[in-house]
Amino acid sequence: MSSKSRSPCSSYGLACGTLEAGKGNTIADVAGVTVGHFTLRDGDLRTGFTALLPHQGNLFCEKLTAAVEVINGFGKSAGLVQVDELGTLETPVLLTNTFGVGTGVNALIRRAISENPEIGRSTGTVNPVVLECNDGYLSDIQAMALTEAHVVAAIEAASESFEQGSVGAGTGMSAFGFKGGIGSASRVYELDGRRFTLGALVLANFGRPGDLVLPDGRRPHPKDLKRAEERGSVIVVLATDVPLESRQLKRIAKRAGAGLARLGAFYGNGSGDIALAFTTAGRVAHFASSDFVVREILVEDRIDILFQAAAETTQEAVLNAMIASPAMRGRGRNKRPSLADWLAANG
Amino acid sequence: MSSKSRSPCSSYGLACGTLEAGKGNTIADVAGVTVGHFTLRDGDLRTGFTALLPHQGNLFCEKLTAAVEVINGFGKSAGLVQVDELGTLETPVLLTNTFGVGTGVNALIRRAISENPEIGRSTGTVNPVVLECNDGYLSDIQAMALTEAHVVAAIEAASESFEQGSVGAGTGMSAFGFKGGIGSASRVYELDGRRFTLGALVLANFGRPGDLVLPDGRRPHPKDLKRAEERGSVIVVLATDVPLESRQLKRIAKRAGAGLARLGAFYGNGSGDIALAFTTAGRVAHFASSDFVVREILVEDRIDILFQAAAETTQEAVLNAMIASPAMRGRGRNKRPSLADWLAANG
Amino acid sequence: MSSKSRSPCSSYGLACGTLEAGKGNTIADVAGVTVGHFTLRDGDLRTGFTALLPHQGNLFCEKLTAAVEVINGFGKSAGLVQVDELGTLETPVLLTNTFGVGTGVNALIRRAISENPEIGRSTGTVNPVVLECNDGYLSDIQAMALTEAHVVAAIEAASESFEQGSVGAGTGMSAFGFKGGIGSASRVYELDGRRFTLGALVLANFGRPGDLVLPDGRRPHPKDLKRAEERGSVIVVLATDVPLESRQLKRIAKRAGAGLARLGAFYGNGSGDIALAFTTAGRVAHFASSDFVVREILVEDRIDILFQAAAETTQEAVLNAMIASPAMRGRGRNKRPSLADWLAANG
Amino acid sequence: MSSKSRSPCSSYGLACGTLEAGKGNTIADVAGVTVGHFTLRDGDLRTGFTALLPHQGNLFCEKLTAAVEVINGFGKSAGLVQVDELGTLETPVLLTNTFGVGTGVNALIRRAISENPEIGRSTGTVNPVVLECNDGYLSDIQAMALTEAHVVAAIEAASESFEQGSVGAGTGMSAFGFKGGIGSASRVYELDGRRFTLGALVLANFGRPGDLVLPDGRRPHPKDLKRAEERGSVIVVLATDVPLESRQLKRIAKRAGAGLARLGAFYGNGSGDIALAFTTAGRVAHFASSDFVVREILVEDRIDILFQAAAETTQEAVLNAMIASPAMRGRGRNKRPSLADWLAANG
Repeated sequence: MSSKSRSPCSSYGLACGTLEAGKGNTIADVAGVTVGHFTLRDGDLRTGFTALLPHQGNLFCEKLTAAVEVINGFGKSAGLVQVDELGTLETPVLLTNTFGVGTGVNALIRRAISENPEIGRSTGTVNPVVLECNDGYLSDIQAMALTEAHVVAAIEAASESFEQGSVGAGTGMSAFGFKGGIGSASRVYELDGRRFTLGALVLANFGRPGDLVLPDGRRPHPKDLKRAEERGSVIVVLATDVPLESRQLKRIAKRAGAGLARLGAFYGNGSGDIALAFTTAGRVAHFASSDFVVREILVEDRIDILFQAAAETTQEAVLNAMIASPAMRGRGRNKRPSLADWLAANG
Repeated sequence: MSSKSRSPCSSYGLACGTLEAGKGNTIADVAGVTVGHFTLRDGDLRTGFTALLPHQGNLFCEKLTAAVEVINGFGKSAGLVQVDELGTLETPVLLTNTFGVGTGVNALIRRAISENPEIGRSTGTVNPVVLECNDGYLSDIQAMALTEAHVVAAIEAASESFEQGSVGAGTGMSAFGFKGGIGSASRVYELDGRRFTLGALVLANFGRPGDLVLPDGRRPHPKDLKRAEERGSVIVVLATDVPLESRQLKRIAKRAGAGLARLGAFYGNGSGDIALAFTTAGRVAHFASSDFVVREILVEDRIDILFQAAAETTQEAVLNAMIASPAMRGRGRNKRPSLADWLAANG
Repeated sequence: MSSKSRSPCSSYGLACGTLEAGKGNTIADVAGVTVGHFTLRDGDLRTGFTALLPHQGNLFCEKLTAAVEVINGFGKSAGLVQVDELGTLETPVLLTNTFGVGTGVNALIRRAISENPEIGRSTGTVNPVVLECNDGYLSDIQAMALTEAHVVAAIEAASESFEQGSVGAGTGMSAFGFKGGIGSASRVYELDGRRFTLGALVLANFGRPGDLVLPDGRRPHPKDLKRAEERGSVIVVLATDVPLESRQLKRIAKRAGAGLARLGAFYGNGSGDIALAFTTAGRVAHFASSDFVVREILVEDRIDILFQAAAETTQEAVLNAMIASPAMRGRGRNKRPSLADWLAANG
Repeated sequence: MSSKSRSPCSSYGLACGTLEAGKGNTIADVAGVTVGHFTLRDGDLRTGFTALLPHQGNLFCEKLTAAVEVINGFGKSAGLVQVDELGTLETPVLLTNTFGVGTGVNALIRRAISENPEIGRSTGTVNPVVLECNDGYLSDIQAMALTEAHVVAAIEAASESFEQGSVGAGTGMSAFGFKGGIGSASRVYELDGRRFTLGALVLANFGRPGDLVLPDGRRPHPKDLKRAEERGSVIVVLATDVPLESRQLKRIAKRAGAGLARLGAFYGNGSGDIALAFTTAGRVAHFASSDFVVREILVEDRIDILFQAAAETTQEAVLNAMIASPAMRGRGRNKRPSLADWLAANG
């Protein structure tokens, strides 16, 4: 039994590209990366936090090299400007609904201070990264029901093994008229005889009904749904253990857009499409003892394999998010069918 | 008595450039713009919110054309990605300390929902703009003492007439080793025989001790202060009533950097230097009734006068912020002298 | 007989998207746009110029609003920096091989001077736009055989009716291991009850053998070709008659990348992927008589139809370029099969 | 006698900043960097090429890490897109007049092919970098009089010792209503106990008459000249031997803008202001034998000294260019006074 059979996508025979999947076919195949959820599902609420820990140490003291690509900037994510300038990531990455960003920011600041009492005293401040999509169709987003305690719960739940679908930040999301949510995938490959991994975690909440294209060319359309203006968004987090500089990670993040386009998306006006990429190789010390560091870096013309992996994992992670999400009723009488049901009926 | 005599800067004979200042020599010379403060000065706290209302109507329904320029991205401001993509501003602009951003975001969301119950229901979400500097030297930034009620207080205090110096977000700020804070300035000029205004509001918290250069070439150095690594930041908000498209506003915002450089700054690594520019001309309807609108736009090669005004008002607003701020003792035994005292002693 | 039947693509039953094609299904469906070729096919040479005239008047005096999106910047195109800053296009758009850019630049300058003797005298200079791909596999690119007279020939040949495939700049290009070249497509739609057109012209020279995906999910692989590092490039020129500002055109140009990704591309490291978009609506006078102009502009949330058209026309124009190009032998013993032959054999 | 006394600027007692100048106070203080000129001064022609060789080996085989910052993009320079994407420089850097770019591009391509016959055959193409300003006020730019042989002459003349002022590309340039041209400056500093250098080479052709501010606050105004629309440009090339990645070099290049602003510039609409920065540390092999390389990199929060050096050398290099240029009569009856004469008269 191949590793690919573990993915929701592959259980329906849908193959995204040609590279080999990692052991778990999730972003946690990148050593050190864990993911945790807090899910709020109560009355008209279908929302939550998903926390990704890029490594298991003190992230403020040992930052990771990172980059961000704004595919379409109709979004309210926090922390992107500094990642773009400095090329480093210094907090866990939080995913949530659009109106949970402020609370997520506050919780990440408090956590960083408690781990690093020098922050805002003898050293600078901290840059919390919180990414978001609008789950207002299925959830009462106006309630602003998420709290800082919920962030803590998501972080504490972080594990190499995590659920996909309608959990955490993905609870109330929609995609192509179907139920969306949290999905993941990974690819492995060799460079200089060493084995490396690239993984994607997506919060899928984008795409107009009727625009979805499966890898085999089929176009699933949710019943009774008219094509509507896009008001979604999609967040793609890419992790790898390949040694890279931030400029290279930005190039890789951009290829998440290719993965989205293969699904039929065209980055609709109202969709905040953001990709964040980081490498776990070569930590960046906050308190450096010398003026120079020595780093290993990928030779530029060997980068195509990572571009391909970024496109493939993004495409598959979105399908995994959709297939892992059962049909849902949410706020008011709003509902979303499941792509899994469509696939079962059209198998 | 000329209008320029009203500015803290001009009372010491310091002239920034050659254009004529507006009536009040503040950003409120741009019709419709008001500014309000909430100041928190208690124990080790020296912080607050400053709110700028770009016009007096419903900003979500009637957005303004805007743009942002990240001069140096070591900063945690919220809302910039969407301004950059769509070229519009749809909330008041909040200024505060670095760890007040999350609370500012939440308060602006709640205000927008209360004015526009369709948000997150039948229409999309809202993009709160909150800009920040780190006041941790003089204030206990770890306390995260600001609340959403403080945002409301700042917004309700907004007026065409407002204080400069150590008020609102400027309460605990530092600049070039002196006390920094909130400052403003304006310039007026004619285009096609019509009179127009450009104004700047700055939150000045940047510059190494010893780097400041006055317009007359003098270099004030605070006593007993060694040159240190920069951990400051500066926010520049530019308002004008000239009809412009967003691309033109981005070009104008970039010239704020020229104003900062004339003061001796070089956009230090640790300084989050952000400029936001908007025009009050030609509101952008959220609910448009047709597919096209007609707009007046400045001819591109007439834009130099606005570039010059942006540089001059930025330079003067920073000096006004510094001169209007008396010496201060803050958190611990930390203190900052006043540039006004230096000028009086070296007059 | 529908208009779509005119396209090489549709004659094999390949449909790219759902929007209606324009009358000729080329970029010349946008009124005023013409295209001309000069083809150099001699010995080891397989190269040329393709000239696109955005309108039939004096382009320097009456510029068009334009924007550029660098999808992957491994390219040597000229003129992009100024288009990005000012948002205007003031010369014909030339396509050629990588080493023809300098000669193309010189020819466009000379043409602009001859039409506008004020250039470099009483007014500023001119910004020639020359876009390129590397045809070195099939053509002797080191020969630098193209001359300024060849540019003039291409411009003089410009017409609403033009050839696709291995002509002009497309003569020696390759794509996905097959023969590439020049292709075009268009889409029409209504806004406010008026009929508008968006068209694409591509110079297709990108894609690794084996990566091509047809709209129906099939993956044509050229015989006997191993997957190799990408050293290609693709240029996409988008024209429309919808009134737009430059920021909007940049957003539209970005969606060319979605069209490329739907073909299986991931913007390989060595591929210079550039999209240039312009609108024929609302000419921009070089010598303006007043400080302001009045413009019609598309309401932002009506832009999705243009995003979709950009993705669809890019995808189809590439397929048209490939299908219209017969198999070719070029420099040395190098050869490229035709996608048309593959389609005929696998119909 | 201090090293600073060698600079045109310092001979008039004008000090730009506080860092120590290098031995020759030019960009050639960075080991390996040489500069050569070809000057064309004949009839109405006042133009030429200036060639900067970043190192003395085969640049295509051993590239240097580089970055570009477009301060104001009203310019026609070639090669910037690829530098921005890949972060490498692979040809000499040519400076010339706006209409010499095409010829410069062709000459650099031919030179690269002759040194590397694999180009366009078994490996990719080459990215020539040619930067420009408009010397049309003093020179007959319409004549397009420069040839490829002139490029060869400039490259062959390259030396550690080179002239400043009205030579090479600087021959016909103007600045702030005075004669402009080629200027240079350098700064030295220590990191981790090792001595490093940063140098600037500028092609100064920008600034409105009356806007120039000297470091001592004086404002030299050329006689009989009215303030006019800016139609100039300025090119800044920064070289250092500090090990840096491309993202860091882009941040450094941006600080050239601070140097320009200190001179009174505000990056006028019609001025193409471009900064290119490279490091001679850590060459980048075109034909890499393994997938990874090991590099030394500066710790980010040690970068302020380079920011300061970039601003100071840019400011001084412009003044050096102006002071080294005697008054000139050029095309028609056009003339430019010398800043040296103004300084002598106002000393």
